[in-house]
Amino acid sequence: MSEAAQTLDGWYCLHDFRSIEWSSWKMLSEEERKAAIEEFQAILDQYASVEAEEKGSHAFYSIVGQKADLMLMILRPTMEELNEIETELAKTKLADFLIPTYSFVSVVELSNYLGQSENPYENPRVRERLYPILPKSNHVCFYPMNKRREGNDNWYMLTMDERKEFMKQHGKTGRKYAGKVKQIITGSVGFDDWEWGVTLFADDVLQFKKLVYEMRFDEVSARYGEFGPFLVGNLLNHEKLEKLLKI
Amino acid sequence: MSEAAQTLDGWYCLHDFRSIEWSSWKMLSEEERKAAIEEFQAILDQYASVEAEEKGSHAFYSIVGQKADLMLMILRPTMEELNEIETELAKTKLADFLIPTYSFVSVVELSNYLGQSENPYENPRVRERLYPILPKSNHVCFYPMNKRREGNDNWYMLTMDERKEFMKQHGKTGRKYAGKVKQIITGSVGFDDWEWGVTLFADDVLQFKKLVYEMRFDEVSARYGEFGPFLVGNLLNHEKLEKLLKI
Amino acid sequence: MSEAAQTLDGWYCLHDFRSIEWSSWKMLSEEERKAAIEEFQAILDQYASVEAEEKGSHAFYSIVGQKADLMLMILRPTMEELNEIETELAKTKLADFLIPTYSFVSVVELSNYLGQSENPYENPRVRERLYPILPKSNHVCFYPMNKRREGNDNWYMLTMDERKEFMKQHGKTGRKYAGKVKQIITGSVGFDDWEWGVTLFADDVLQFKKLVYEMRFDEVSARYGEFGPFLVGNLLNHEKLEKLLKI
Amino acid sequence: MSEAAQTLDGWYCLHDFRSIEWSSWKMLSEEERKAAIEEFQAILDQYASVEAEEKGSHAFYSIVGQKADLMLMILRPTMEELNEIETELAKTKLADFLIPTYSFVSVVELSNYLGQSENPYENPRVRERLYPILPKSNHVCFYPMNKRREGNDNWYMLTMDERKEFMKQHGKTGRKYAGKVKQIITGSVGFDDWEWGVTLFADDVLQFKKLVYEMRFDEVSARYGEFGPFLVGNLLNHEKLEKLLKI
Amino acid sequence: MSEAAQTLDGWYCLHDFRSIEWSSWKMLSEEERKAAIEEFQAILDQYASVEAEEKGSHAFYSIVGQKADLMLMILRPTMEELNEIETELAKTKLADFLIPTYSFVSVVELSNYLGQSENPYENPRVRERLYPILPKSNHVCFYPMNKRREGNDNWYMLTMDERKEFMKQHGKTGRKYAGKVKQIITGSVGFDDWEWGVTLFADDVLQFKKLVYEMRFDEVSARYGEFGPFLVGNLLNHEKLEKLLKI
Repeated sequence: MSEAAQTLDGWYCLHDFRSIEWSSWKMLSEEERKAAIEEFQAILDQYASVEAEEKGSHAFYSIVGQKADLMLMILRPTMEELNEIETELAKTKLADFLIPTYSFVSVVELSNYLGQSENPYENPRVRERLYPILPKSNHVCFYPMNKRREGNDNWYMLTMDERKEFMKQHGKTGRKYAGKVKQIITGSVGFDDWEWGVTLFADDVLQFKKLVYEMRFDEVSARYGEFGPFLVGNLLNHEKLEKLLKI
Repeated sequence: MSEAAQTLDGWYCLHDFRSIEWSSWKMLSEEERKAAIEEFQAILDQYASVEAEEKGSHAFYSIVGQKADLMLMILRPTMEELNEIETELAKTKLADFLIPTYSFVSVVELSNYLGQSENPYENPRVRERLYPILPKSNHVCFYPMNKRREGNDNWYMLTMDERKEFMKQHGKTGRKYAGKVKQIITGSVGFDDWEWGVTLFADDVLQFKKLVYEMRFDEVSARYGEFGPFLVGNLLNHEKLEKLLKI
Repeated sequence: MSEAAQTLDGWYCLHDFRSIEWSSWKMLSEEERKAAIEEFQAILDQYASVEAEEKGSHAFYSIVGQKADLMLMILRPTMEELNEIETELAKTKLADFLIPTYSFVSVVELSNYLGQSENPYENPRVRERLYPILPKSNHVCFYPMNKRREGNDNWYMLTMDERKEFMKQHGKTGRKYAGKVKQIITGSVGFDDWEWGVTLFADDVLQFKKLVYEMRFDEVSARYGEFGPFLVGNLLNHEKLEKLLKI
Repeated sequence: MSEAAQTLDGWYCLHDFRSIEWSSWKMLSEEERKAAIEEFQAILDQYASVEAEEKGSHAFYSIVGQKADLMLMILRPTMEELNEIETELAKTKLADFLIPTYSFVSVVELSNYLGQSENPYENPRVRERLYPILPKSNHVCFYPMNKRREGNDNWYMLTMDERKEFMKQHGKTGRKYAGKVKQIITGSVGFDDWEWGVTLFADDVLQFKKLVYEMRFDEVSARYGEFGPFLVGNLLNHEKLEKLLKI
Repeated sequence: MSEAAQTLDGWYCLHDFRSIEWSSWKMLSEEERKAAIEEFQAILDQYASVEAEEKGSHAFYSIVGQKADLMLMILRPTMEELNEIETELAKTKLADFLIPTYSFVSVVELSNYLGQSENPYENPRVRERLYPILPKSNHVCFYPMNKRREGNDNWYMLTMDERKEFMKQHGKTGRKYAGKVKQIITGSVGFDDWEWGVTLFADDVLQFKKLVYEMRFDEVSARYGEFGPFLVGNLLNHEKLEKLLKI
């Protein structure tokens, strides 16, 4: 057998996508809608406090197209906290008008293909990446992926050295987008149906397309990458959410 | 790794397919239906103004078969505007009777396989193709597609020259249909589940079949093309929409 | 690239499959049900007139199993007429109790693998096949199919001569069933998700199984055939429809 | 092309799987539920009479897990009778609380791989197998399957002799389970999405697992078998059904 | 044909996943909710008694993400008991607010790749593994899997010795996690759509990821493993369930 890559694992992560059930939402009175939005925003404010204390982070975006209307991405130190947040949200009034459309359970992951430090969990630069405060970029892109195991294109049958070399090339492509695209890799082996989740943040949405397309020509993607659904969206804040939900 | 193709990217694009929930639509009164249609047509008139100012474009068609009843294709300069249009439509009365059935998020794309100009974004002929005013042809055909990455048929492992040669042959087939079929290619890598969307416009619906079938014998399609769902439809205007929705 | 097969194309075709929502249908009063059936049968009578004038044709069958309860197959000269028929049916009372389960959009197709005449569209025997009056056989069988494009089994990479030879063998198998099974091939490239629809008519339902099974041993099916869902059913007429819908 | 296997075909067969909509069933009054159960059992009694006259047969089982709650398997001389039974059941009160979850349309089939008799349809032992009275075993197992047509594993490209040899080995494995498992093979080529349905009956449910697992090591399954959903269940009778549906 | 592995089979097993229908649950009065929870907990108490008598076992967890909210895993001596438990649960008030999302039917299995004892069913250490009392670990992970049968990667075409060697390596990886992860293998050939179910228990949820990821580099997983959906969750008890369901 090939030597397994070692990973560093940080905060647990839930991506939660929902669609708005507009026809029932419209049936509420102006006051009921207002109350529902305020209740929901109070919870977002709580999350902001958690983030300020660096005990977690979150991102909240609207999604383009019919796959979803909203994405909430939550980072927390434990799987139990993710579950509690799900339950807390389910009990809000607004949740009665949100239809679950997709979710992804994972954990922030760094791979030792990138080189190793002595005790990485004490290294501040590693910690920043394992427990990241998510940026408030204009746009988000999320997709899950696998490494392929098919015939001659079987990632898990390669040697550690071969895999390292492939990942090094891939990293070079990624670094061209430094400053333009911020990437969070979360591992989901044993937690969800794909092996990794990739969440990209950028102010210029076109950079997602350029990055993902250029990377597809890297041999590691061309031969070994299998990609799930892609979701793309725009940043939400209190004001934008109110405008979105205003009838 | 192979050299990635460079793309030129124009307006952002949303294809939005919906089915009519006839049994509830019939329950409205004549006046309610009339009001809902007028509200919706007022929005289409707004889009027509945007198009007249060349700040975007749209196409509105009925779809044949059970996959959908209506297709609205929207082109706009930003991803945010696509999102706003979705929200605006969701808030209309008519939307309460339209069930989302499929959508596709992409951006108008030209590829450098076709040859390069100096500053292509300033070239008027390139601009016409990146920011196209969609034709009012009798018929539309939409399908998403990927380039295959399987065993010996891996598009992304070919050299740039091989890919250029394949695309050149493919272009020749396409040019036989000049004047009969207008084709808009939109790129969706990083935005949606397929890599490209193809939207065809023609006055003679049979030309879609002839074009797509002939192209399937091009090696680039035969070996490297993977095709998603195909949707075909007929042009709608105010009068036809009223007739369609009249009970 | 391989030379594309030339096709002759006749009437446009919609296969429309629906399930009956029995629990709501039962809630109607006897008179409401009677009125709904009569309205629907009046439309079928219209279609019969169109057929008598040879301006189109149709077939109406009940389907066995849970995939659908009813199949309406409609042939018309234009794609617009198919759309109008869909809309007309959607507006009937009966349609409120019919759930769409599958549809297929295509066009009657003859292939030049079969040999060519001078101006085939003027040849009466060709015209009979392009604009066919559908038989009132006891049974129908429908399935969509593709020609495979995988590794060494890539239909579209074969030469025209190879394809002709394969189709000739296939035709021989088909001719054994002459007089027992009538076959209508409709092309759906560019119109629907599969490349062809096959509709078989027979008085003895077992002949469908014998034909399809024997053909599967033809190399063209064994190596190159990909098959979608199969639907099988029994002929309906006014009397049988009334009996079916009687509570 | 390879020589096609000849088949002997007996009674037509419908497997009909349904889930109980418990929350609405509970809303009925005790009397309504009682009436619905009695109406349904009267129909089962009719089927029992048909079976006693050897004009058909049926099996009625509860299913374990969420795929379904009930399975009714019906054998009849014609496809029309299957359709009539579906309609008759749809009109019962109980059917309003049963959600269709899966069905399979086929015909009892014997293959000539097994050796041929002179006029097999007159041979009493063959007739017993073509027109079988289904056993009242404690347990049922149903799954549909295909013979694979992929690359070097293409069943339909093998010669008749190769296929016979494979099937002979497979038959040997099956015969080890004689007296423990009764197997009904139904052919569905041209009738449903898979090529065959396999229905197993046993008093010891573990024998299903042992049989199917041991057979998977036969080359005919290992290389050529493709398997659909598996459903397993327990025998129902009037008393057990009443207990099942009692609130 | 290859020699089939012999298995030892213990208690039958049902994994039952459900989502909470929050919007209707909220509509109940406080008392109705309280009564529904108490009724459900009384059933869980019954299961606890069964477990205390070593006549079965169960595990009850909340699930993270949208695939489900609750998982009940039940072990019992017969398939009939699993069915009775399903029916008993369906009749509770709480069940009216639980939507079935996934289930898996199987039987606890030990494989003879592990070495054989004389009469294994009398061996106390074997019995402990065939009739296991499920741990109350903080976390659960469930996934179904197949052994692959594709081209050169066909598990069922390997010899018994080759398979034993592969499994031995795999066992070594597993043993590294002794004390950290408890694994229950259930066989589902003939019972459900995948061949095995894997249920992992751990107090540290990260160990699931580490174990599954490391194992993926074992050749038996890399080349022969096919994995279904992964579900991960947190332990529930009476108190936590009350908190979860409290509005």
